[in-house]
Amino acid sequence: MITVLKPGTTEAQKSHLIDWLKEQGLDVHVSVGQDYTVLGLIGDTSHVDMDLIASLDIVEAVKRVTEPYKQCSRKFHPDDTVVDIGGVKIGGGNFALIAGPCSVESEEQIIAVAKAVKASGASLLRGGAFKPRTSPYDFQGLKADGIELLLEAKKITGLPIVTEIMNANHLPLFEEVDLIQVGARNMQNFELLKELGRIDRPILLKRGLANTLKELLMSAEYIMAGGNDKIILCERGIRTFESYTRNTLDLSAVPMLHELTHLPVIIDPSHATGVNRLVGPMAAAAAACGADGIMIEVHNDPPHALCDGAQSLTPDQFDDVARKVSAIREIVAK
Amino acid sequence: MITVLKPGTTEAQKSHLIDWLKEQGLDVHVSVGQDYTVLGLIGDTSHVDMDLIASLDIVEAVKRVTEPYKQCSRKFHPDDTVVDIGGVKIGGGNFALIAGPCSVESEEQIIAVAKAVKASGASLLRGGAFKPRTSPYDFQGLKADGIELLLEAKKITGLPIVTEIMNANHLPLFEEVDLIQVGARNMQNFELLKELGRIDRPILLKRGLANTLKELLMSAEYIMAGGNDKIILCERGIRTFESYTRNTLDLSAVPMLHELTHLPVIIDPSHATGVNRLVGPMAAAAAACGADGIMIEVHNDPPHALCDGAQSLTPDQFDDVARKVSAIREIVAK
Amino acid sequence: MITVLKPGTTEAQKSHLIDWLKEQGLDVHVSVGQDYTVLGLIGDTSHVDMDLIASLDIVEAVKRVTEPYKQCSRKFHPDDTVVDIGGVKIGGGNFALIAGPCSVESEEQIIAVAKAVKASGASLLRGGAFKPRTSPYDFQGLKADGIELLLEAKKITGLPIVTEIMNANHLPLFEEVDLIQVGARNMQNFELLKELGRIDRPILLKRGLANTLKELLMSAEYIMAGGNDKIILCERGIRTFESYTRNTLDLSAVPMLHELTHLPVIIDPSHATGVNRLVGPMAAAAAACGADGIMIEVHNDPPHALCDGAQSLTPDQFDDVARKVSAIREIVAK
Amino acid sequence: MITVLKPGTTEAQKSHLIDWLKEQGLDVHVSVGQDYTVLGLIGDTSHVDMDLIASLDIVEAVKRVTEPYKQCSRKFHPDDTVVDIGGVKIGGGNFALIAGPCSVESEEQIIAVAKAVKASGASLLRGGAFKPRTSPYDFQGLKADGIELLLEAKKITGLPIVTEIMNANHLPLFEEVDLIQVGARNMQNFELLKELGRIDRPILLKRGLANTLKELLMSAEYIMAGGNDKIILCERGIRTFESYTRNTLDLSAVPMLHELTHLPVIIDPSHATGVNRLVGPMAAAAAACGADGIMIEVHNDPPHALCDGAQSLTPDQFDDVARKVSAIREIVAK
Repeated sequence: MITVLKPGTTEAQKSHLIDWLKEQGLDVHVSVGQDYTVLGLIGDTSHVDMDLIASLDIVEAVKRVTEPYKQCSRKFHPDDTVVDIGGVKIGGGNFALIAGPCSVESEEQIIAVAKAVKASGASLLRGGAFKPRTSPYDFQGLKADGIELLLEAKKITGLPIVTEIMNANHLPLFEEVDLIQVGARNMQNFELLKELGRIDRPILLKRGLANTLKELLMSAEYIMAGGNDKIILCERGIRTFESYTRNTLDLSAVPMLHELTHLPVIIDPSHATGVNRLVGPMAAAAAACGADGIMIEVHNDPPHALCDGAQSLTPDQFDDVARKVSAIREIVAK
Repeated sequence: MITVLKPGTTEAQKSHLIDWLKEQGLDVHVSVGQDYTVLGLIGDTSHVDMDLIASLDIVEAVKRVTEPYKQCSRKFHPDDTVVDIGGVKIGGGNFALIAGPCSVESEEQIIAVAKAVKASGASLLRGGAFKPRTSPYDFQGLKADGIELLLEAKKITGLPIVTEIMNANHLPLFEEVDLIQVGARNMQNFELLKELGRIDRPILLKRGLANTLKELLMSAEYIMAGGNDKIILCERGIRTFESYTRNTLDLSAVPMLHELTHLPVIIDPSHATGVNRLVGPMAAAAAACGADGIMIEVHNDPPHALCDGAQSLTPDQFDDVARKVSAIREIVAK
Repeated sequence: MITVLKPGTTEAQKSHLIDWLKEQGLDVHVSVGQDYTVLGLIGDTSHVDMDLIASLDIVEAVKRVTEPYKQCSRKFHPDDTVVDIGGVKIGGGNFALIAGPCSVESEEQIIAVAKAVKASGASLLRGGAFKPRTSPYDFQGLKADGIELLLEAKKITGLPIVTEIMNANHLPLFEEVDLIQVGARNMQNFELLKELGRIDRPILLKRGLANTLKELLMSAEYIMAGGNDKIILCERGIRTFESYTRNTLDLSAVPMLHELTHLPVIIDPSHATGVNRLVGPMAAAAAACGADGIMIEVHNDPPHALCDGAQSLTPDQFDDVARKVSAIREIVAK
Repeated sequence: MITVLKPGTTEAQKSHLIDWLKEQGLDVHVSVGQDYTVLGLIGDTSHVDMDLIASLDIVEAVKRVTEPYKQCSRKFHPDDTVVDIGGVKIGGGNFALIAGPCSVESEEQIIAVAKAVKASGASLLRGGAFKPRTSPYDFQGLKADGIELLLEAKKITGLPIVTEIMNANHLPLFEEVDLIQVGARNMQNFELLKELGRIDRPILLKRGLANTLKELLMSAEYIMAGGNDKIILCERGIRTFESYTRNTLDLSAVPMLHELTHLPVIIDPSHATGVNRLVGPMAAAAAACGADGIMIEVHNDPPHALCDGAQSLTPDQFDDVARKVSAIREIVAK
């Protein structure tokens, strides 16, 4: 971090500031020019309050040279991280299709969907057991029973499973879950992130609805700071003023994150758009811009068959999408 | 909830839908007109997936007649809720100034600030003990020691205290905290909300950075559904594209929430703007549009004295603001 | 449009409302059911103030059955519109790469860039002559001279040209411009749109920074209402809270607009991201989700060579992007 | 503007950059320190592309010391500007209530409303003659006839009038309009702004739906650069994700703009909220945070009497609001 002092700064003011910076554990390299003095702050500046320094009367400019995230930064770890999820690899050129229903509803349902998506090329099975719902009166998922059903489907199909955790106290129930998902609403539930940093299991971290990429990386940093570096980032739409789609899928996050971090980046077009007719085109676009994986909602249950389904694909529709994604992947990989 | 079926709907399609709705525990009142059939859904429709019904081919329109929140709705509870916080009332014409430092730093600091803000008319003391920080490397608060210091300041000044909880497992440490704050980042940490619904203590629920008022009320509903109706809502700025201020304070939330709910509504102008020079004008505006309370950051510690302070007021500045707020309150109350 | 009246509505209230609706030139089809009365409003409801009706005490629900746009709606014109721009077709399966510098700077520059992008497969040349600049002190473009230089480049390369108009009074200068661009900031400059509706020339209409897709279509409707149906829509990023990219490219606009309208839809990844390293991946993604064209900034001038260029590609970089886009197009077209 | 060069920058690179900066008409003051070299750019840097310089490999940091706006900046003109509108002053402690209907509909209507709002303390009459409508099929206003009716109402009541211009070619019709409004959708219609810079008439410049305060000031700068310094800024709500209100009123814009500029700042709570029940509280809040004026929609026409009116007040409601605003003004002015 560098700090440029204004031309009229007195020696007393300068020493006062330098002393205060040193108290915070930093080395300060002073570079006196004709008009300006530049302070180079050396050491761990990630905890320094830049806004506070910038607001000082004697300061002309402050600039971070390094981003506040470190362990997840591409600068400190140039090679792609490859995350192994029960034998399935994501990142570093390894691509995975993740598919399954929004909620696990019954043994019959989850096994049928698991078989269908596997046949179409999915390598991981998703399904909600603990469901974060805006309303306390909405169905909150089958909870522990839902995880049991996912494990049953895993036994039959061999697909590793991913499901969402909402409370660190539930961790014992997640013992056999291959990839633990942190939902968008919990992206800055720092207490949960800290707990997940202490275990040795892959984490799927979803971007919050109104969180910047920097904040997403800071949340990944919370997990890595605890010792767990098996993290996959997921863009799933951000909140804007547009109302034809539920959220706005920010696909530029894929190449931008690939530049900033070594962690794999996947896309969830189902939650992002909320419209099943847009899932295929957005999955194709995600593959084209280099995503390391795509997570898609697929259902085959009768009640939804009544209608389009708000955002889920049928197994047949998923099969079409999987083919197109695969063909695009081949071109992009060249 | 009413559902209008399209003119061409067949009897078979109609019965199919009605059966499915009844399976969900609803009574269905069918009203057949010349062209359209209107289904009146009676019973607890708060858990019905409106998007799913709207997406059916045979459905022309769906409209909720009641909002999905109930216990916090003004419709079901026309009188203002008055929350009693260790003897200090908020709501129903009772107004409270809440003040204190962003973080509790030392006994000297918190006691000095508490005395100063009490002298200026504050009736509650705020101070962060557990701090939600974007970066794992930032100061995370004094934690349990911070709560001890707040209680020390309470003993000396008599001011009830408010501080933030980030983890339901910490509840034993909050035994003597008068008002427990849920921060913006945890507004949709539903597991935490459920736990807070089970205790008998006032809760200060802050609106998330990108959450709608409807979502804020649904989160309050989570707490009320558990049996705790001592809730105060707090608007603290939402995320927009504007960059001169940290967030955009949505003051229209005050009269809008007063119309929708019986719960008290307070404003936090310090976090909303992030600029201490704007805190006074925004506090005055909050009082003018009917807020039931205002929460302001006040510090008196030397390191911050170096500068403006990003968003805190000095005790003298707070005293000026308190006077103006009080005068405006008198006019508005007339 | 249908309007559902509440159960207790009196005959007098009903007639009062029906009379008022008829005064507005609508036929009203009344369908009386057991509880509810449904009014079907027939005729041109595009000018009816839905909010006003919805706010009436006796109204339970109002729902538009048709969108307020008509001529640009897919419903009224199921086949894709193909726009012919000096012999180059866009839409209905016809794809075009549009490339060129942000601003026309000199004859040498524009001709060199035109030759380079043509060699890489561009079929239209873009270049700014009249530049909308946030600051009155910024370079405002070469204006009429810039158009002359574009025409010179067209004569040499045969590429039809596209450039932005900011004032209807400048139309005489645009006599030989093949495709006239309306910039994002003028998307709701209705006076300009009306003038462009009166001419017989293709129009490239860019989405405003904070405009919904519905508003974009309503602006297209302004042009079509005047008689000009040669319109190409362009998504170029919307304004969000994310700051690593200049705007957030909303690629789901492509399949969504294809569903709503018959007009061609193109993508401008250069302005959307503001970062040249993201242009290639976003162009690939645009092709993958079915865009009818992509518009890319390409420069070859020495001053910019000093640096990355904030958002422009070099001719070599453009050549790579063009190849990848072409390969992806082949898969998607299958 | 200062530019900090990285430690390893060579002399050749440094001279190359300095030469290029000088070519742009700047003086460059070089300050060489031990590690860093700081370039102080002196002269008119308002047209310098900061992003371009920041993107150079050799540049560590760039910081504007002065904002890109000059004539409207408080720094260059510390005293408040007072705008005189046909004898009514706004700014520098002078406050004005502006009221009237959304659209001028008839002589009877505009005169009745004008008399009513004058009686309640309004000092300016607003009314739409040329209406910017999202749909080409919506009522576009009475145009020239509407202006005639406003002038008629002015003759009878003595209230100066304000109405919106959408096209510089209409200026001859605005000869007798006291305050010419530029609507939110035209805030960056730079061609219109330039024309208004050439006349000697007060301009009411509304902030665009997704424009920053900096962009609003740059648009004011366009008008001032032409020689017209009679500008009043107006905040009227920005676009966010919240849907209970039409837009989100950004009241912190009032004190923030007062710090940045000497121009008067007024608030339009009617368009901001779109809900008439919120207009009174937001008007009170605007007065409390120091707005120089408030513009409110008031109607008295029968068709709207059917309902609440989406955002207009009745004359009686306006009278109440005017009283409260006046009382708050007295406290704030102290």
